[in-house]
Amino acid sequence: MLSPMPTDWHVQLKPNKVGPGEGWKNIMVKVGIFGATGYAGFELVDLLQKHDEVEVVFCTSESSAGMTLDEIYAQGPHWPLIKSADAPLDQVDAVFLCLPHAASAATAVRARAAGCRVIDLSADFRLKSLETYEEWYKVEHPRPEWLQEAVYGLTEHARDEVKEADIVACPGCYPTSVLIPLNPIVKAGGVKAGAHIIADSKTGVSGGGRKAKLLYHHVEVQDNMTPYGIGQSHRHWAEMSEKLAGWSNGNGAPELIFSPHLMAIPRGILSTIYVPLKDGWDAEKVRALYEDAYGDEPFVKVLPEGKLATVAHAVRSNRVAIGMTVAAGMLILTCAIDNLTKGSSGQAVQNFNLMYGFEETTALL
Amino acid sequence: MLSPMPTDWHVQLKPNKVGPGEGWKNIMVKVGIFGATGYAGFELVDLLQKHDEVEVVFCTSESSAGMTLDEIYAQGPHWPLIKSADAPLDQVDAVFLCLPHAASAATAVRARAAGCRVIDLSADFRLKSLETYEEWYKVEHPRPEWLQEAVYGLTEHARDEVKEADIVACPGCYPTSVLIPLNPIVKAGGVKAGAHIIADSKTGVSGGGRKAKLLYHHVEVQDNMTPYGIGQSHRHWAEMSEKLAGWSNGNGAPELIFSPHLMAIPRGILSTIYVPLKDGWDAEKVRALYEDAYGDEPFVKVLPEGKLATVAHAVRSNRVAIGMTVAAGMLILTCAIDNLTKGSSGQAVQNFNLMYGFEETTALL
Amino acid sequence: MLSPMPTDWHVQLKPNKVGPGEGWKNIMVKVGIFGATGYAGFELVDLLQKHDEVEVVFCTSESSAGMTLDEIYAQGPHWPLIKSADAPLDQVDAVFLCLPHAASAATAVRARAAGCRVIDLSADFRLKSLETYEEWYKVEHPRPEWLQEAVYGLTEHARDEVKEADIVACPGCYPTSVLIPLNPIVKAGGVKAGAHIIADSKTGVSGGGRKAKLLYHHVEVQDNMTPYGIGQSHRHWAEMSEKLAGWSNGNGAPELIFSPHLMAIPRGILSTIYVPLKDGWDAEKVRALYEDAYGDEPFVKVLPEGKLATVAHAVRSNRVAIGMTVAAGMLILTCAIDNLTKGSSGQAVQNFNLMYGFEETTALL
Amino acid sequence: MLSPMPTDWHVQLKPNKVGPGEGWKNIMVKVGIFGATGYAGFELVDLLQKHDEVEVVFCTSESSAGMTLDEIYAQGPHWPLIKSADAPLDQVDAVFLCLPHAASAATAVRARAAGCRVIDLSADFRLKSLETYEEWYKVEHPRPEWLQEAVYGLTEHARDEVKEADIVACPGCYPTSVLIPLNPIVKAGGVKAGAHIIADSKTGVSGGGRKAKLLYHHVEVQDNMTPYGIGQSHRHWAEMSEKLAGWSNGNGAPELIFSPHLMAIPRGILSTIYVPLKDGWDAEKVRALYEDAYGDEPFVKVLPEGKLATVAHAVRSNRVAIGMTVAAGMLILTCAIDNLTKGSSGQAVQNFNLMYGFEETTALL
Repeated sequence: MLSPMPTDWHVQLKPNKVGPGEGWKNIMVKVGIFGATGYAGFELVDLLQKHDEVEVVFCTSESSAGMTLDEIYAQGPHWPLIKSADAPLDQVDAVFLCLPHAASAATAVRARAAGCRVIDLSADFRLKSLETYEEWYKVEHPRPEWLQEAVYGLTEHARDEVKEADIVACPGCYPTSVLIPLNPIVKAGGVKAGAHIIADSKTGVSGGGRKAKLLYHHVEVQDNMTPYGIGQSHRHWAEMSEKLAGWSNGNGAPELIFSPHLMAIPRGILSTIYVPLKDGWDAEKVRALYEDAYGDEPFVKVLPEGKLATVAHAVRSNRVAIGMTVAAGMLILTCAIDNLTKGSSGQAVQNFNLMYGFEETTALL
Repeated sequence: MLSPMPTDWHVQLKPNKVGPGEGWKNIMVKVGIFGATGYAGFELVDLLQKHDEVEVVFCTSESSAGMTLDEIYAQGPHWPLIKSADAPLDQVDAVFLCLPHAASAATAVRARAAGCRVIDLSADFRLKSLETYEEWYKVEHPRPEWLQEAVYGLTEHARDEVKEADIVACPGCYPTSVLIPLNPIVKAGGVKAGAHIIADSKTGVSGGGRKAKLLYHHVEVQDNMTPYGIGQSHRHWAEMSEKLAGWSNGNGAPELIFSPHLMAIPRGILSTIYVPLKDGWDAEKVRALYEDAYGDEPFVKVLPEGKLATVAHAVRSNRVAIGMTVAAGMLILTCAIDNLTKGSSGQAVQNFNLMYGFEETTALL
Repeated sequence: MLSPMPTDWHVQLKPNKVGPGEGWKNIMVKVGIFGATGYAGFELVDLLQKHDEVEVVFCTSESSAGMTLDEIYAQGPHWPLIKSADAPLDQVDAVFLCLPHAASAATAVRARAAGCRVIDLSADFRLKSLETYEEWYKVEHPRPEWLQEAVYGLTEHARDEVKEADIVACPGCYPTSVLIPLNPIVKAGGVKAGAHIIADSKTGVSGGGRKAKLLYHHVEVQDNMTPYGIGQSHRHWAEMSEKLAGWSNGNGAPELIFSPHLMAIPRGILSTIYVPLKDGWDAEKVRALYEDAYGDEPFVKVLPEGKLATVAHAVRSNRVAIGMTVAAGMLILTCAIDNLTKGSSGQAVQNFNLMYGFEETTALL
Repeated sequence: MLSPMPTDWHVQLKPNKVGPGEGWKNIMVKVGIFGATGYAGFELVDLLQKHDEVEVVFCTSESSAGMTLDEIYAQGPHWPLIKSADAPLDQVDAVFLCLPHAASAATAVRARAAGCRVIDLSADFRLKSLETYEEWYKVEHPRPEWLQEAVYGLTEHARDEVKEADIVACPGCYPTSVLIPLNPIVKAGGVKAGAHIIADSKTGVSGGGRKAKLLYHHVEVQDNMTPYGIGQSHRHWAEMSEKLAGWSNGNGAPELIFSPHLMAIPRGILSTIYVPLKDGWDAEKVRALYEDAYGDEPFVKVLPEGKLATVAHAVRSNRVAIGMTVAAGMLILTCAIDNLTKGSSGQAVQNFNLMYGFEETTALL
């Protein structure tokens, strides 16, 4: 039988660096990727190929087990795909879970039992409240106690915890684009009491995942713009609200309105966020706050006055670009990220780097 | 002299209907189009070709005079383009002005002197306040007194005035997408006192006009999303604020925040509008208000519960689709129009139909 | 149970023209549409709404029966969808079949038994050779004898037969874009003996149909260009080859190479066709041939010297634009059509108009 | 005066690697980039930032001198832009010329006088024939004798010459996508005598350069496909024809027909190339030839049987993907590259690596 694509592309291109099953010199950390054929999974594959101190020991895919990654992605490496059940957990130090919720938690249980540290890209460990989890995700959690133990890996605001964590829950793509810009003003108590914060977010289509759905058919998406799940009805609303409440101690949690929109581009998120300011807060004070908060961050870019964040600032990078505008007592934050990088696999690698003592920016610049 | 495209496409396709210089049977109204080669101008050409009771006597273009429309647009009719100065105003009943501001007002002066009724697609007659006009448009107005006389042609809310008007100012594209959904709730006094109304609007690229600018280069736009002029700094903010204030008598004018964004699609606007509701207003009361306001309108579609407006609802049509969502005391209106049709030339034709006693939907269905 | 979208949009917009179940004045022909929710089916719905002398009595959809068209398409009319088996064939004069092959032939059998004339948009009646049909479509044909009787509805070249036909097989989208430009030169014997004709065709994504496939996922298609089925391996190659052979009597049938490509746009086809010319044929002689062949056609546009066909010449219209270039003895034909209009439903309506004695361009301008 | 974007983004992101004006450790080669703000120029900036053994000493831009690169490109480094006339040629070892033709040759004269090696991305040194150059580029060449001396840097076929060259002319984007796949079969004498080779090429919009032209306006490009300069009328035809003739010694030069098309994507080229085969050549023999020619190449990927090249195989990489199909005696080569990488700046870096003894793939994987 002929293999559909029996190539050695990866080996050709990276002669000093090979895939699963062969040894690398100076390898420090061995990892496995669960769910490697989704958009986030493949982005992770792509990033980890640039990481000189990681060996990817296995990649799983339930639907494509038996195939190789280059059969799925034109530029993918010639790496075999195996069933999740066949993953040799005893051979890796850590696992990345790019799985749907519930499947992710179940796999985390297996991985922890094998002693692996877990970097989870699903929603299964993002929330602290079991009640909220069950309300929004409609499943039972196999290890409710781990919700407290897991670290919410919004890296810039959780470095110390991430370093020591055994389970890191990488934030959702929308929450990353909303919480990073909101953190300073909310923590500083700059939000007007009783007012709504509105996050009007726009995402590229890869945010919906690699699914054969009419909703994502090119003809349905192209030349269109589609709001969905607006108000307080999207799961990411619950995730953001919990985090904002946690940051508002003593200030009263602001009410969040969140409106996601699907736009006709493959990747990138732009969130336009409206924050009514408390008296005494003006453009200058806000700017000072943000430059103080993020001035030294390698991935967060506070844009100069008069500049607004655009998808182009962040796409195909781990960057977060933040623009600030104040008008009529309203702070308007524009924030751009790439949903697959900082909003997903890039932040996962950033957290991984912290967990294993690498330079935080390794494989991400 | 050789014409670059000496075709008779239009004549072929519309054997019973020919262009400037030849007679039509049963013609009722003769019109001229100033600025026929821009996107709005050509959309008007396209619409008026379907209007059986209009004769287009001339089309002007300063940059392309001497050419024909089919040299500019692949599907355009073989109609000659002339300089504005050469337009035979004595041969037409009405003129459509698809010109930049200031140029439009100057042409209106000429056209009115020749006895023509004017349908203006520029901003020159949209504002009532001369002071606001001069502040935002940085030019002197040649006929300040006409600002009062001109009718703001948001058709659904100005039918009686439009019918009698000699100058109709067609609303801006963004204002159309914001004011039509806001009118009922603002007029009804349903907006929470002292709160901001936020309009987060997204437009297709044709909204910026047919200009050779790097800003609109395909490579710069594609795969990108760009906010610009957000807060209270876009000219359309001034236009909308004036109209909202006019509708708020006794209720206190709500403060508007307006954030336009450029998206990577050719045409269409989606405005997501956030209106904090006064106590006593809930989803049911809002729905009743809107169905009452727009239930019988031929072009305005109040979407059923749970449905949100998308660009696909309105693109390439004169439709206005309005979705309503209420969450945590916030009314979220989603409104879709086509910026070149209802947001520009379609509404112009709708107004024209009223001015000359045609069925309002003529050439628009 | 609440219908998801209980609107009367269509009735609102077309007060004098209603859908199935109600009567129209002056109706001349009653039709049914099988497969109304695919892209070709809905294009047909869209076109027939503009046809004043047609009543659409029913629309079928196996997957969406029980819903209405406006639940599927944002701008669709509020027409009910029924199962194919429930179609009241006795109430219509003609049926349009927008079905997959095999399903189409089976439905044609039912429709002919009920006395309906059939306009088929599938491949089931396009080929004359039963052997070719079975080889390429891998099914048995229920009425092999109808292959001879059915008329291949490449309208410009089959007017007399179409008028009288009981079964019209509308050509495939690619074949329309290749055969119309090739007909004159092939019939005139201008092709160099023994040479290959090459048709390099590019299609918009709607050409693949409205199917939930990863292949058509926005992220897979956008920013990409994908050849497929090139050489002599696409079913449309067989269709074209049969017709070219038929036109080549005495001249020897040219060998066709056909290379379809999927491009990242929703609709439109551009075929670039390479025809090695027989000695004695030059640009001038070719031009004269084409202007003679198509100069009076309402939908075929022979572009002037130096102009090439682009998708923009034809998209969202029933037009066929043909450009001609001669270089080094090679005639390069560029041909643009809209795959859903002239390449499918537009040509179907054009044929329908001929069959029932309407002006050929009715509802198509 | 405030600088529009006084940021230190680049320094933040690359703490160990800074831009012009500051020293790097272990730097081996100092270079200057002329024309750094065009698409090819910025791609070069992007690639060279990843090259650990290069220092970019200066970047020029006539239109943007005085600004910094991050003011032009959202993800650009904070590097100053200077006028070409101010470039300190005495401080660099080599220069990259991303300039229009004629301007490039003039700058090459200056650079060579200062002892710099020249990597030219323009057309000024690609042709060997002065007559052909003057005919197609309509300018006089300042150093006709250098046409012989310069090396045509189609890297895979000129390694030895590139290593020693003082002037490397990087091939055009289209020629790269056509000549790499054609080289083996043409050199092997596999092309049928007297037959035409047809290259039907499709390019992304960045291929046209970063110019404020209506031709590249998003609205004109999107949803469109436009052939231009087809037959034997594009400058790249002359470039390819000269090279093919050089490879055909004794076999007779095949006549080339070249048809470029503009497609609605930002970057990438797909060339579909039709080669009538000489008797005795079949699919197997062709495959053996190509695997032998390119099997060990780091950037050229000969796709397995049945696979066709797509833009996705090569976009945003220096890869060349080649698919092979044989039908009816015709070899159909599909070849994908990224026009800005292998078709321009990537190949320039590949050549640079050879010239200075670096691993050929440095900064390109």
